[in-house]
Amino acid sequence: MTERPSKGSPGRHSVAELVQGVLEGKRLLLARAITQVENETPQAQELLRTLFPHTGQAHIVGVTGAPGTGKSTLVSALTRRYREAGLRVAVVAVDPTSPFTGGALLGDRVRMVRHSGDPGVFIRSMATRGALGGLTKTTSDVITVLDAAGFQRILVETVGVGQAEVDIASTAHTTVVVEAPGLGDEVQAIKAGILEIADLFVVNKADRPGAARTVTALEMMLQLGRGAPRTVLHHGQLMRVERPDGPVQGEAGGESPDWEVQVLKSIATTGSGVEELREAIERHRAWLLASGEMEAREQARVARMLEGILQAELKRRMLAALPQESMGQLIQAVSQRRLDPYSAAQEMLQQLVK
Amino acid sequence: MTERPSKGSPGRHSVAELVQGVLEGKRLLLARAITQVENETPQAQELLRTLFPHTGQAHIVGVTGAPGTGKSTLVSALTRRYREAGLRVAVVAVDPTSPFTGGALLGDRVRMVRHSGDPGVFIRSMATRGALGGLTKTTSDVITVLDAAGFQRILVETVGVGQAEVDIASTAHTTVVVEAPGLGDEVQAIKAGILEIADLFVVNKADRPGAARTVTALEMMLQLGRGAPRTVLHHGQLMRVERPDGPVQGEAGGESPDWEVQVLKSIATTGSGVEELREAIERHRAWLLASGEMEAREQARVARMLEGILQAELKRRMLAALPQESMGQLIQAVSQRRLDPYSAAQEMLQQLVK
Repeated sequence: MTERPSKGSPGRHSVAELVQGVLEGKRLLLARAITQVENETPQAQELLRTLFPHTGQAHIVGVTGAPGTGKSTLVSALTRRYREAGLRVAVVAVDPTSPFTGGALLGDRVRMVRHSGDPGVFIRSMATRGALGGLTKTTSDVITVLDAAGFQRILVETVGVGQAEVDIASTAHTTVVVEAPGLGDEVQAIKAGILEIADLFVVNKADRPGAARTVTALEMMLQLGRGAPRTVLHHGQLMRVERPDGPVQGEAGGESPDWEVQVLKSIATTGSGVEELREAIERHRAWLLASGEMEAREQARVARMLEGILQAELKRRMLAALPQESMGQLIQAVSQRRLDPYSAAQEMLQQLVK
Repeated sequence: MTERPSKGSPGRHSVAELVQGVLEGKRLLLARAITQVENETPQAQELLRTLFPHTGQAHIVGVTGAPGTGKSTLVSALTRRYREAGLRVAVVAVDPTSPFTGGALLGDRVRMVRHSGDPGVFIRSMATRGALGGLTKTTSDVITVLDAAGFQRILVETVGVGQAEVDIASTAHTTVVVEAPGLGDEVQAIKAGILEIADLFVVNKADRPGAARTVTALEMMLQLGRGAPRTVLHHGQLMRVERPDGPVQGEAGGESPDWEVQVLKSIATTGSGVEELREAIERHRAWLLASGEMEAREQARVARMLEGILQAELKRRMLAALPQESMGQLIQAVSQRRLDPYSAAQEMLQQLVK
């Protein structure tokens, strides 16, 4: 059975039916609820409002990295390990680089083969919604639905190395950055940005030449990064969420010592190192809970979620307040340099804001 | 002389002085104006308003691609060719993966060596501003300043393969997508998204094994893509800008036939193929002007610019309207599941919107 219902039967289910279905973990209704959320139907908001109080149980694991690192295979292998450990797992694959929903669909089917018939696994690819903020928001909404549906681990796989993917991953509880040997020189530079968000590094394809060098390079960068001030650059763009008091980087001792970012090795295709990765994620979760950091990350996640909702809502209201025609006229005036964009924006805001 | 003034002397110049300096192409004042824009100082908006009517002359070339493709070297080689052709060139390197301004600075210095002392070249790296939308907006503002300063070609180099980088590149007049042989299997999948925005492909590092295969793969994908409907997915998120009537994909004949996306080869380190790339960019520019597509792209660029300004302004007003304290309380209520994020957003909006 496919996870994605045909588009031919929208709205066949009431919000109450969908909510009940999600909470009972009924796959078809779950898939339909997610579709509603993805398509931002009129019911979606009520659905999310009703499901939200049932969330907060899932541990969200972001898995990010450059193309070619073998993330998808690793996520699949990790899913299997989690199933063996008796946990229900959902996978959300965020692929903003493919505007072809068809591609995402195909990807789901290929992935599903391995876990097909297992009711404890649910896999969903997010097609791009065009807007990037939109993708972050939709991903967070889909996570809400899966959390309410009782999936205990939600793996969010993001392709690419851009800020957006980093953002999505950084709203996870645990962020795993996947590297692979021999992906070119620039990878070194990228790590600078990624150091800030990684809770764990995995050098996948560890049987390839250069793996040891990649591990060493990462460990050296981590060594260099220690003691440097930690920023909350990727958390709470709109509102800055301070971390609760606690031990800071470089300060030893105390009941919950700092998390030490580790560099693991894996060969996802053979499964080698995957159980160790799973165990490291679980250790990180235990540390988050013990240190109070979990609460800080939840607040950052919420701040990000609110920001996404606000942006979407403001956009909607803007479009409602400004007729397409007058918007087109403003654009034309600016593109002909008869008006500057700042004055045009001011005009548009006057229609909307107090 | 460094392009980036010390932070010790902010506001030493009035807006009028900066405007005059930019319009006269004075490097120090230009660099300071850009710093104002990057830091979103109170003077920045007035500066941009005043400079905007002087823009519209530059041709903006987006150069994007995955890490390891050798984009930076290619951009540098391309800059040299443009100088030989007698044009003034500005380079904006957008690097959202590095939150270390130091890194960007170092990058600038390394790049500058090649073009140092040439007043016809200006290079600027954009450090991440944290917010992604912010980066797109700031980049577009920096382009405004450089355009007003009389640079005839502005090369915007974006690292990464994420949607954000694609977005920045897609607001260019001409988008060049750089590939390289042997960057892993996933690259194929990424091309699906990138097909939509590429005006030109360059397979760089063409002396490496697999280059011919990469070229063939790209050409096959282009072949497959022909005849498919073109979306304006990456243009004008907020407001959809329609293209002017004109020949559509697959329709032959007419005064200005369709642009055929080409796949070029280059070895940036030796300069091989770089002049051919420059010529192809110029052919594309000529086509844009002849076909009326330039106007459509300008409108899309303006729409994107307006969207960025509006989002930044709404954020600013939101922060002004909602005291930090009440925002923190809302976040806490949501993260403790006492309130759902949609209701919280509604409360916040009531402070702001008509």
